[in-house]
Amino acid sequence: MPVMTRSPRRPSARTVRPARPRSANKTRYVYFFGNGKADGRGHQRTLLGGKGAGLAEMTLIGLPVPAGFTISTQACAEYYERDKSWPPGLERQVREQLARLEKTSGKRLGDHDDPLLVSVRSGAARSMPGMMETILNLGLTDRSVEGLAAVTHNPRFAWDSYRRFIQMFSTVVTGLSKDVLEGKLHDLKHRLGVAADTDIPADALRELCAEFKAFYREQTGEEFPQDPWRQLVAAVDAVFNSWMAEKAVTYRKVEKITGLAGTAVNVVQMVYGNMGDDSGTGVAFTRDPSTGENQFYGDMLINAQGEDVVAGIRTPLKLSQLADLMPDVWDQLLGVRVMLETHYKEMQDLEFTIERGRLYMLQCRTGKRTPTAAFRIAVEQATQPLLTRAEATRLVKKKCLPARYLAAATRPVLTKDEAILRMSSTDIERLFYPIIDPSVPASDLAARRIAEGINAVPGAACGEIVFTAAEAETLAAAGKSVILVRKETSPEDVGGMHAAAGILTATGGKTSHAAVVARGWGKCCIVGCDALQIDYGGRRMSANGRELRQGEELTLDGSAGVAYSGRLPLVQPESPPEFQTLMSWVDQRRRLRVRTNADTPYDAEAAVRMGAEGIGLCRTEHMFFDTEERRLAMQRMILADATDARRAALDALLPFQRKDFIGIFEAMAGRPVTIRLIDPPLHEFVPHDEDGQRKLAGRLGISDEKIRQRVSQLHESNPMLGHRGCRLCLTFPEILEMQVRAIMEAAADCAQRGIAVAPEIMIPLCIDRKELGILIDNARRVAEAALGKAGLRGNGPRGRSTGRSGSNGVRYLVGTMIETPRAALLADQIAEVAEFFSFGTNDMTQMVMALSRDDAGRFLPDYVDHDKAGIFADDPFQTLDQEGVGLLMRWAIEKGRKTRRDLKIGICGEHGGEAESVKFCHRLGIDYVSCSPFRVPIARLAAAQAAIADKSTRRRK
Amino acid sequence: MPVMTRSPRRPSARTVRPARPRSANKTRYVYFFGNGKADGRGHQRTLLGGKGAGLAEMTLIGLPVPAGFTISTQACAEYYERDKSWPPGLERQVREQLARLEKTSGKRLGDHDDPLLVSVRSGAARSMPGMMETILNLGLTDRSVEGLAAVTHNPRFAWDSYRRFIQMFSTVVTGLSKDVLEGKLHDLKHRLGVAADTDIPADALRELCAEFKAFYREQTGEEFPQDPWRQLVAAVDAVFNSWMAEKAVTYRKVEKITGLAGTAVNVVQMVYGNMGDDSGTGVAFTRDPSTGENQFYGDMLINAQGEDVVAGIRTPLKLSQLADLMPDVWDQLLGVRVMLETHYKEMQDLEFTIERGRLYMLQCRTGKRTPTAAFRIAVEQATQPLLTRAEATRLVKKKCLPARYLAAATRPVLTKDEAILRMSSTDIERLFYPIIDPSVPASDLAARRIAEGINAVPGAACGEIVFTAAEAETLAAAGKSVILVRKETSPEDVGGMHAAAGILTATGGKTSHAAVVARGWGKCCIVGCDALQIDYGGRRMSANGRELRQGEELTLDGSAGVAYSGRLPLVQPESPPEFQTLMSWVDQRRRLRVRTNADTPYDAEAAVRMGAEGIGLCRTEHMFFDTEERRLAMQRMILADATDARRAALDALLPFQRKDFIGIFEAMAGRPVTIRLIDPPLHEFVPHDEDGQRKLAGRLGISDEKIRQRVSQLHESNPMLGHRGCRLCLTFPEILEMQVRAIMEAAADCAQRGIAVAPEIMIPLCIDRKELGILIDNARRVAEAALGKAGLRGNGPRGRSTGRSGSNGVRYLVGTMIETPRAALLADQIAEVAEFFSFGTNDMTQMVMALSRDDAGRFLPDYVDHDKAGIFADDPFQTLDQEGVGLLMRWAIEKGRKTRRDLKIGICGEHGGEAESVKFCHRLGIDYVSCSPFRVPIARLAAAQAAIADKSTRRRK
Repeated sequence: MPVMTRSPRRPSARTVRPARPRSANKTRYVYFFGNGKADGRGHQRTLLGGKGAGLAEMTLIGLPVPAGFTISTQACAEYYERDKSWPPGLERQVREQLARLEKTSGKRLGDHDDPLLVSVRSGAARSMPGMMETILNLGLTDRSVEGLAAVTHNPRFAWDSYRRFIQMFSTVVTGLSKDVLEGKLHDLKHRLGVAADTDIPADALRELCAEFKAFYREQTGEEFPQDPWRQLVAAVDAVFNSWMAEKAVTYRKVEKITGLAGTAVNVVQMVYGNMGDDSGTGVAFTRDPSTGENQFYGDMLINAQGEDVVAGIRTPLKLSQLADLMPDVWDQLLGVRVMLETHYKEMQDLEFTIERGRLYMLQCRTGKRTPTAAFRIAVEQATQPLLTRAEATRLVKKKCLPARYLAAATRPVLTKDEAILRMSSTDIERLFYPIIDPSVPASDLAARRIAEGINAVPGAACGEIVFTAAEAETLAAAGKSVILVRKETSPEDVGGMHAAAGILTATGGKTSHAAVVARGWGKCCIVGCDALQIDYGGRRMSANGRELRQGEELTLDGSAGVAYSGRLPLVQPESPPEFQTLMSWVDQRRRLRVRTNADTPYDAEAAVRMGAEGIGLCRTEHMFFDTEERRLAMQRMILADATDARRAALDALLPFQRKDFIGIFEAMAGRPVTIRLIDPPLHEFVPHDEDGQRKLAGRLGISDEKIRQRVSQLHESNPMLGHRGCRLCLTFPEILEMQVRAIMEAAADCAQRGIAVAPEIMIPLCIDRKELGILIDNARRVAEAALGKAGLRGNGPRGRSTGRSGSNGVRYLVGTMIETPRAALLADQIAEVAEFFSFGTNDMTQMVMALSRDDAGRFLPDYVDHDKAGIFADDPFQTLDQEGVGLLMRWAIEKGRKTRRDLKIGICGEHGGEAESVKFCHRLGIDYVSCSPFRVPIARLAAAQAAIADKSTRRRK
Repeated sequence: MPVMTRSPRRPSARTVRPARPRSANKTRYVYFFGNGKADGRGHQRTLLGGKGAGLAEMTLIGLPVPAGFTISTQACAEYYERDKSWPPGLERQVREQLARLEKTSGKRLGDHDDPLLVSVRSGAARSMPGMMETILNLGLTDRSVEGLAAVTHNPRFAWDSYRRFIQMFSTVVTGLSKDVLEGKLHDLKHRLGVAADTDIPADALRELCAEFKAFYREQTGEEFPQDPWRQLVAAVDAVFNSWMAEKAVTYRKVEKITGLAGTAVNVVQMVYGNMGDDSGTGVAFTRDPSTGENQFYGDMLINAQGEDVVAGIRTPLKLSQLADLMPDVWDQLLGVRVMLETHYKEMQDLEFTIERGRLYMLQCRTGKRTPTAAFRIAVEQATQPLLTRAEATRLVKKKCLPARYLAAATRPVLTKDEAILRMSSTDIERLFYPIIDPSVPASDLAARRIAEGINAVPGAACGEIVFTAAEAETLAAAGKSVILVRKETSPEDVGGMHAAAGILTATGGKTSHAAVVARGWGKCCIVGCDALQIDYGGRRMSANGRELRQGEELTLDGSAGVAYSGRLPLVQPESPPEFQTLMSWVDQRRRLRVRTNADTPYDAEAAVRMGAEGIGLCRTEHMFFDTEERRLAMQRMILADATDARRAALDALLPFQRKDFIGIFEAMAGRPVTIRLIDPPLHEFVPHDEDGQRKLAGRLGISDEKIRQRVSQLHESNPMLGHRGCRLCLTFPEILEMQVRAIMEAAADCAQRGIAVAPEIMIPLCIDRKELGILIDNARRVAEAALGKAGLRGNGPRGRSTGRSGSNGVRYLVGTMIETPRAALLADQIAEVAEFFSFGTNDMTQMVMALSRDDAGRFLPDYVDHDKAGIFADDPFQTLDQEGVGLLMRWAIEKGRKTRRDLKIGICGEHGGEAESVKFCHRLGIDYVSCSPFRVPIARLAAAQAAIADKSTRRRK
């Protein structure tokens, strides 16, 4: 039997005019679909919900969809605005569309002989599975059930349908106890000695219906409603009300679903998959959602209704078995598959019902897939056709596929550009991080859930709980997997953080120390876990009334930001060859270069494998924490009373830094390496607890008192705005001298061994041309001296360089981070002395918005919470504030390039790895972004997407 | 005898071409003056030093100046650059000018019969009294001393001159012991039985010279130099070297003298006031420097040299006694007075010597005066002539005054504009603050000097030392005068700060809490006193090795930033009627309005007396600390768990705030009052010490633990960028509601009693239009409701107002502070909702420059220290950073006015009371500045000066 019952109409903007409210009382609330026509369209998810939009669209492209209508989400919103009453006009519109449905179906709601039965389902713009309500078989009454029995010749089916309806209506609409009704059903089966519902005979079901109705009367003091219109109104109200039911509100909160007006209500003519062996129901994906393979994939049940598939009571058949069981329906489905995927250009997840050999489509939406599948699907959609020509021709001949789909079915669905645009950051992220095995039952997860925090770094990790960085290092060295749990972290903890499998902190946001450092390593990290109480002394933590002690096991889901007790199984997705294919297309298209933030040769190598084209930010201070020896030298430097003692301590650090730089230069093999001189305030390098201070005093052979005094002297009210960045090098020029010497001696060492090097010395936190000029002059002087000593040519004291090393020289750049508003405002002056700019957008965001990233957790959610104020669309530490910070960047770029036409401009804030921000950087004309190694592919993808968007903008012009 | 020995030449830019270095070896280092000609000019203080420039200028205007030449400060600078050797060309130039001097004087250096004798004196661009060296009578040798004896017929004079020269040369140039030589002189007098040097006969002096020379030989192994050229070279070197002598370096550091290249050296022909009773020497002021009275004022000695006047050995005569003693010289001096003051248009301080009845001018400079005199002089210079016509005519007739000075002498020297431009902030400041009695000997001050800090608020104060605000309050209530000494202060301390006579803190800069609050009251305050160690537990402080305990006395000089032990006498300058006269001229000329920052009716009244035209910043949070009761209600609010408890606590605060606002509105009598809603982070309102927390727990009846938890919860890493400002009102809308209600109920109360009110509600720290829109809408809603309840009309929910209250309504404005860079960048959007802007330049400076005002003390001095980096000309917290912060302000003003043409714009940062910043605000086109009451006259003056500068700019165009 052909799929199309009538000549299909292609949807067209001209013929299908979307209803627009013109004035309040003319607002259109109800959208009809059926018989190839639909008032709504597929893109109207916000107004019609995902389900309603899908039904309208499927109807329009000629798929067999049962007729019905959708009550818009706007109606729901106004229902709440009007204190739970229907907005004026809604009742009239529902009655009108119900009449249209009756006309289309040829049946009437409540008709005694052949009643129209409908389902009433919720459907929000975003999927909230199981969270809201559904009523099936609405329209059945004591009299129409008899008609249904007669017209279907199936009293058992009719009474079972009535029984289900009464049960759903009683519980969902009226709120009666589910358990009591289920108990009565259970008792009945017990009395009859049957196991399955389907084995209960019609008479027994009729009696059960009576029993249910008596219970209804008893509980409500009213008869079970026999007026189908009253049934419908009550069901719609129930769906509306389910939107604000506690479980739905909680779900939206947990899933961070915001900005939705309400739920739509879909009223659809019932079709039945449980009318015999020529009936059935199933779910399918147009491609294999696990592997991405180009094959029709799904499950189905014969003689069953949709909820039976979901409930998992019977073992479903493989969809492909339908080819043998119902070959015609199978071919129809094959046609549907082609139509859906070529129409939506995306792998679809669909639901269908077969009623007495006739196929009905009940739902379609873009299907969820594994990370591996995502890339395979995109690449295959862009390179291979969905069907062979032979198969496509066969389906057309069999009228299971309209002839006009022949071409689409036998060529790639997407262009390569479209395939690139299809992919998201999440697709890439999911490919690189281990995840909790999806087969772990939800109930298990729920039982183990301890607390939620901010999902700072995706991936999952499990291990023993430790509360100090030192213990993390010790246990990790002994081969244990540990989770480091801290109130917050500081640079002192870096060793332990690196040793840990995952990090959980009670405070901080996505750009807190813990988050930034962990992200650099791609290490699972949850921060800002408010509920967490840590008792360092007692070596225990508690959250939401549960306590865990050191050594107990913890699993972190960094992608969701949830901590679970115990050790959950993790799986690591496989990176498919299609990932490399897609990234090669990406690299062909992007203009923006992508560098990485890396502080070690190890990170540098990892980043190159991820496609990094250089290092945009090498934070030298992390090197000071690598070993006890380095830490001590650094601390000795900080505690030095006089320049000489400071110099001596710095001299001890120099060989370490030089060695690290050599390793990094080797790993980067001639790619540019931007090295930032010391940035954090010195207090971050010294212990703040008495114990640590006492130990340090012992190691350095000075008094506790002196250390205490120095630490207290280093204390700052607002360290973010304090003595840090290049201010340190102005106060202690010897620090700059040591660092530049280490960099250039390393460069010279490599150059002498024939390894190309392109160092870029970056001076952080400048605010003034004169200030920066002094430091850049110092840096050049030291650099030239170091190269000269090695017998190499440099740039000359004021030489302009190209950033590439010559045959017997080392070319280097000296530039600055633009992270203070003043540096950006006066960029024209700054560019007089700086050869490059690198936007430090983390700090710039802090200063432009007066937002401390460590403290903003307390109130920033109020700004990004759409249900409250909705001031910002996104966390500005995650997605660049294009309007404010972006304006200042645009200004700085313009002013900077006016002074120095070839000014190299990059961005090394956390935003450099966030897709929207990367696209913005592309539009600003920045030369490169830099981000943590694991985000490099994300940045590459976003850069390509921005370049493609440019092309299409130009085309439109 | 007439003053002019030859026809005077008026200086002219055309005839006197200033020497400019064309290339290194052609640099002019030596500038001659004498006989009415001079190579230099009076404005060349930087190059010639104050003394050299004065000598050149006096020579040019025809005054009798002994001839000589000045070696420039540039020569001194190059001397140091060349490792203490003369730059090429200097020797040649000195020889050339020496020859010119010999020609002019008709004598030769080292001549055996009639030798040319010269003085060699230092003279930097800024006066450094007593800090550098002088050698007199240079040119005397064993042979020329005989010639001098013969030619003067005065062997005693000649040998005394040689004795003085040998003594000065030995000590100053060669560094021999002063005490040994003085001892020999003393012994001689003892042997001879005479008291005064003048009583030693010539022969004895000749023997003393021999003794001195023997000592010289003994100490140096060389003969005392008999070659006058060698003497001169050594003397010049000695003056150069004195520039970097420890005492000079220290003096410059203490006096914050920076940016000078070195000292000039003045080589001048000697004249002698000790040649008999027709000789003498003196110092004079063209007006009385104490009272400002228009009379010639000074001291002199007959038959004495300059150093005798300074040494104070003999009691000097009043200058006016000269009229009887040497009437001709007196009239010459009267002529000199007119010429100097009409030429310089400023009261002059001059030095002269009379050699055998002939007058010589040795120095002139603008004279120091008391604050009272400063105003009297300026006003009288602008309204009254220096001399009566009769007196002027008499002097002209007697040829003591050139006829062309007749007109100048008999009309006001200045225009009113010039009188205004003459005055400075310091002149006004000194008028309003008590100072340490200037008669306290410098040695006493030096002995009592304990430590230096930053001079946050001028004036002086003394009292007993206390270390806590509570003790300050208790002792002050008992009538004691106390000095509050703290590491730093916080809002909790405000009561004690107010009670104290002066405040001293170890940390903080000019815009730290202590400084800002004290400035509001005009209370003497020193901050950032690094050397200070405070032991709160031991109730003692120490600095630079001295310890002081609670109860001991301390005197603060807030103007100089110095703390002294003990109680020094203070004097309060008298405000002369001329101050009011000058300020009335000021008010006629300025465009910029001047408001005040005031938080209490008391401050508001004081400010009105100072000329404030409104309140530009009323900080409501200070009101919360006024009494224990208010403090508790505030703390209860902060500790509240839920909105209801918070509301209840706020309800308790409302009557207090309303009462304060009523008092302020009454005091301001219809002038606009800008009230800022709560701004500081909440942690500032709760105690951080265990003791305080325990006490609070007791008062509030909640557990210590809960308070500790809440305080720790409120802790922020960077409170400056934290949960404060309007963010508090977004999180806790009930705070805004209470405050706006209190304001508008107070306004309604006044309006109903016929008192005009013009409230302006100011929302701090906004960063976004949406954010601000929400808060402004809330404020309007509450305001309209409060007015409506009182039966008064408001603006309507969106109404535009003029800021003036109508007859039966209250007009008010709702606006915002522009203090974050983002608000400034997006000012066009912000102005869509704000009716006024007030620049919070303190915070804006912090964010634009990434400078925490509380922490910058550690490194900002490196930025403003001219001897080091010299990055900023001034502390940006004191003088607005026009280049950076100013650029952002200009942008915000332009964007804001583009959106809202009548946008009212003010500035309420500390800069609003700093002269240069006020002038900048004038140029930006801001409507008003606001500053602490005591700075209101300073701002008025600066505003007038800016307006006058405008006029002259327009005139030049």
